[in-house]
Amino acid sequence: MPTLVALLHGPDQPGLVARTAGWIYERGGNILHADQHRDMDAGVFFQRIEWEPSNPARAPEIASEFSAFAATLGMSARVRSSARRQRVVLFVSKFPHCFHDLVLRFNSGEYPGEIAAVVSNHTDLAAAARAYGLPFHHIPVTPDSKTSAEAAQLALLRETAADLVVLARYMQVLSGGFLRSLNRPVINIHHSFLPAFAGGKPYHQAALRGVKLIGATAHYATELLDDGPIIQQDVVRVTHRDTVDDLIRKGRDLERVVLAQALRWHLESRVLAYGRKTVVFD
Amino acid sequence: MPTLVALLHGPDQPGLVARTAGWIYERGGNILHADQHRDMDAGVFFQRIEWEPSNPARAPEIASEFSAFAATLGMSARVRSSARRQRVVLFVSKFPHCFHDLVLRFNSGEYPGEIAAVVSNHTDLAAAARAYGLPFHHIPVTPDSKTSAEAAQLALLRETAADLVVLARYMQVLSGGFLRSLNRPVINIHHSFLPAFAGGKPYHQAALRGVKLIGATAHYATELLDDGPIIQQDVVRVTHRDTVDDLIRKGRDLERVVLAQALRWHLESRVLAYGRKTVVFD
Amino acid sequence: MPTLVALLHGPDQPGLVARTAGWIYERGGNILHADQHRDMDAGVFFQRIEWEPSNPARAPEIASEFSAFAATLGMSARVRSSARRQRVVLFVSKFPHCFHDLVLRFNSGEYPGEIAAVVSNHTDLAAAARAYGLPFHHIPVTPDSKTSAEAAQLALLRETAADLVVLARYMQVLSGGFLRSLNRPVINIHHSFLPAFAGGKPYHQAALRGVKLIGATAHYATELLDDGPIIQQDVVRVTHRDTVDDLIRKGRDLERVVLAQALRWHLESRVLAYGRKTVVFD
Amino acid sequence: MPTLVALLHGPDQPGLVARTAGWIYERGGNILHADQHRDMDAGVFFQRIEWEPSNPARAPEIASEFSAFAATLGMSARVRSSARRQRVVLFVSKFPHCFHDLVLRFNSGEYPGEIAAVVSNHTDLAAAARAYGLPFHHIPVTPDSKTSAEAAQLALLRETAADLVVLARYMQVLSGGFLRSLNRPVINIHHSFLPAFAGGKPYHQAALRGVKLIGATAHYATELLDDGPIIQQDVVRVTHRDTVDDLIRKGRDLERVVLAQALRWHLESRVLAYGRKTVVFD
Repeated sequence: MPTLVALLHGPDQPGLVARTAGWIYERGGNILHADQHRDMDAGVFFQRIEWEPSNPARAPEIASEFSAFAATLGMSARVRSSARRQRVVLFVSKFPHCFHDLVLRFNSGEYPGEIAAVVSNHTDLAAAARAYGLPFHHIPVTPDSKTSAEAAQLALLRETAADLVVLARYMQVLSGGFLRSLNRPVINIHHSFLPAFAGGKPYHQAALRGVKLIGATAHYATELLDDGPIIQQDVVRVTHRDTVDDLIRKGRDLERVVLAQALRWHLESRVLAYGRKTVVFD
Repeated sequence: MPTLVALLHGPDQPGLVARTAGWIYERGGNILHADQHRDMDAGVFFQRIEWEPSNPARAPEIASEFSAFAATLGMSARVRSSARRQRVVLFVSKFPHCFHDLVLRFNSGEYPGEIAAVVSNHTDLAAAARAYGLPFHHIPVTPDSKTSAEAAQLALLRETAADLVVLARYMQVLSGGFLRSLNRPVINIHHSFLPAFAGGKPYHQAALRGVKLIGATAHYATELLDDGPIIQQDVVRVTHRDTVDDLIRKGRDLERVVLAQALRWHLESRVLAYGRKTVVFD
Repeated sequence: MPTLVALLHGPDQPGLVARTAGWIYERGGNILHADQHRDMDAGVFFQRIEWEPSNPARAPEIASEFSAFAATLGMSARVRSSARRQRVVLFVSKFPHCFHDLVLRFNSGEYPGEIAAVVSNHTDLAAAARAYGLPFHHIPVTPDSKTSAEAAQLALLRETAADLVVLARYMQVLSGGFLRSLNRPVINIHHSFLPAFAGGKPYHQAALRGVKLIGATAHYATELLDDGPIIQQDVVRVTHRDTVDDLIRKGRDLERVVLAQALRWHLESRVLAYGRKTVVFD
Repeated sequence: MPTLVALLHGPDQPGLVARTAGWIYERGGNILHADQHRDMDAGVFFQRIEWEPSNPARAPEIASEFSAFAATLGMSARVRSSARRQRVVLFVSKFPHCFHDLVLRFNSGEYPGEIAAVVSNHTDLAAAARAYGLPFHHIPVTPDSKTSAEAAQLALLRETAADLVVLARYMQVLSGGFLRSLNRPVINIHHSFLPAFAGGKPYHQAALRGVKLIGATAHYATELLDDGPIIQQDVVRVTHRDTVDDLIRKGRDLERVVLAQALRWHLESRVLAYGRKTVVFD
């Protein structure tokens, strides 16, 4: 039975919970989940509602009607039907761990979506991608070719009708121009507990500083490096015995789990980004 | 500004979210938080709604009216006004750690309630309780005096108009008769990760079994020992180096935090027990 | 530079630390790591020493000489040369997650060992194993064929010169006779926080009991089901919203990490089992 | 039975483990624990040895002799007898949570030491300190009086023969001159996961950045603010629902546990600081 999931946000006002629930109920919809949040300081209301429409065949129209209704309340809404599987493009470089992990999760049916393509600035993972039956596109990036490489990436993302890009340890910074042209969310995994150790070689930085926990952070990519809204973070304990290589090894497990969790929440329409923060309706 | 918090549950049916929110909205109430849950297998709907009534002076009547309305939907509801501070009675024996921890939390304003009395089968904590300005009642319990001791406890709990009993490492089992006569929730902290190591000396059991994590469990007390609905659990890592004394010491920190968290959720009307389980709207 | 790692245990007595270190030092060895533990109650001394021998070519002889020396102190010792890669046989059934995870870790060089073969009572993972270039052996097991199946498994394990068997969600119980004939360690992953929820369907048991954390336990297999010495355990938080399917999904991540960690410690000669417990020199 | 604990460090060279253990063994000492670490990059050897000397009455002389022996190996050593209880001075301001927590731990016998005095720039905790029977010294600090206040603090610390100062949410920065004159370790608790959110109001910074975990860090104080060697860190999960007040409340529990753990390790001679890092022999 397909469901509709709406993510709304807008200026807070009394009655929003009752009115959105009422709208659905009056049209014969059955609300399965409803969660909301108020940012008291910012005066913003956030809501996620999931419901079974009375007439599944009309789901696309109901989605549009709900968005129009939300607009009359001063709220912007994104409504997604569970019947439509989202198309994800993975960007990778040489590290295989997040790549294999995500592919196995998609293959096991964990996610309401599918991998449309794999893009890499290297060829290390080409054979593995093809063994999984995934289209692999090698788009090399050098300082000189960055502009044309991004153009090629954008063309590919349009062709594949990508809904989302996941940077699965992709070791290149995306330009602001690329992000604006793409106009789709991009999720990155950074291998530190941001805002600590932003930038390059965070495990080396962590070893130098002598921290007792290392972290990983999944966030939406923005024009500023390692600065976008954080979706998920986690840490693991380290000791003086751990060398940089140990941190890298421990971090691999962390990166996989944190990125996988963030991707899951995003694909299930549980994440609303606003400013530098996110609301995660888990 | 006082708020009302309702905890509802009953057979699931379409429209419940819309109708409860609608009821409040039509009466000028402003919903601050609303959270719900469906147990699909059991077909039960659970909800917590917190709202500012239009007329705070009428809060008690509105609470009654809401309960009556919920009954028309086939649901039972408990409604509490934030203006009424709950009265908690602490039962302790000799261990001081949970006792001090809870008193300091009440004193710091962490909880919407107050300690009405301290009851103990020993006198070890009498001076500390009185130094905090708390009434302390010594009610010894022996196998022979158990019945009369429980009668004395019940009398005291009625006198103090207790809303809740917290067993802060109280080392006596309460009888089923006591629990039925009391007819108020009782929260216990058990020093293991239930259902592992129920019964006596759980840290010794854990050391014998060689587990790598020890736990603590806060649960509602029922007639069956260490069997009631679990509110909160947590664990801490141990190694082969930890003796039973180390487990006891590490466990103390765990017990304090787990009991404090469970009590907080209960006092904020976030916990609905059903069968052997709980719904915690955190 | 190859190293020797000795794991010793025996009755405690003064001077053991000095004498083992002295023996190595006098022979020109360079101790890299030394860790020890006393079980005060049992009066047992445990030690792990890792050293670079003065003459790597003589490593096998030095290992034998050290074992003989340890025997003169009343201690039994296992000494392993890092130059010899251990041979691991994976037993699997239908679940792919631990299987893929371990293979990828071996392939990435995380472990001082190699997968000698994959054995399964089903054929679901045959293609995946062969795609990784691993020999796959299908040995079906029914109540009637169990004895002959175990005989076939034993023959295979001898042929492959297996040092260790890893039950990577292998859904059959191994008989005591099998374990005695094999006379090699067997590591199992059980999908609960033992001793809670031993036996079948632990996630279903956990959902029924309403626990707030679920766990996974890696342990050495013994004749008694889910009872052997625990190597590693971990937990993950669950809520009333999690269905049995959610527990299974969350548990998959836990099982992978816990089994991978236990295997790593075993292959690095960090684990000494005694009675129902383990010493883990991490 | 009193023990001696030595913390050694110096340039790495072969034979150190054997020679220190041999020295103790030849003099009839019984080694209870020995742990060591090599920083391969820095070429430094670290060791902690705990032993029962053959003649407890000679413990002070044996300690001196061991230090002299360590010097012949090119290592510096600190040796402490468990018979001598360390004297700790607590510096506090207005926050009571770490203060009460530490006092209750000392009172319960958790630590091998005692609180010699409580120093504060405010009087908020004066009554509580005196109720515990602890000498309380009010030394106000203003921008103008800082120099004379530090002089008064130093005089007091000498009078009380303090071995260690613990800043239990003391809200003043200690000058480099103070730290050099004191020449005793100072442990501080910072309410963030350093190096993230150093400086003032870290919970406000964390709320602004939208992190999903908040942390606390216990470290040795140095002249540079929030920069000294880290002893212990931990984190707790937060969500979009947590206001700054919630972060402060959750952080209180974290600060208490992290500071208590760091203090325990220090008092048990488990911590060796070098450069900006620590070795913690736990």
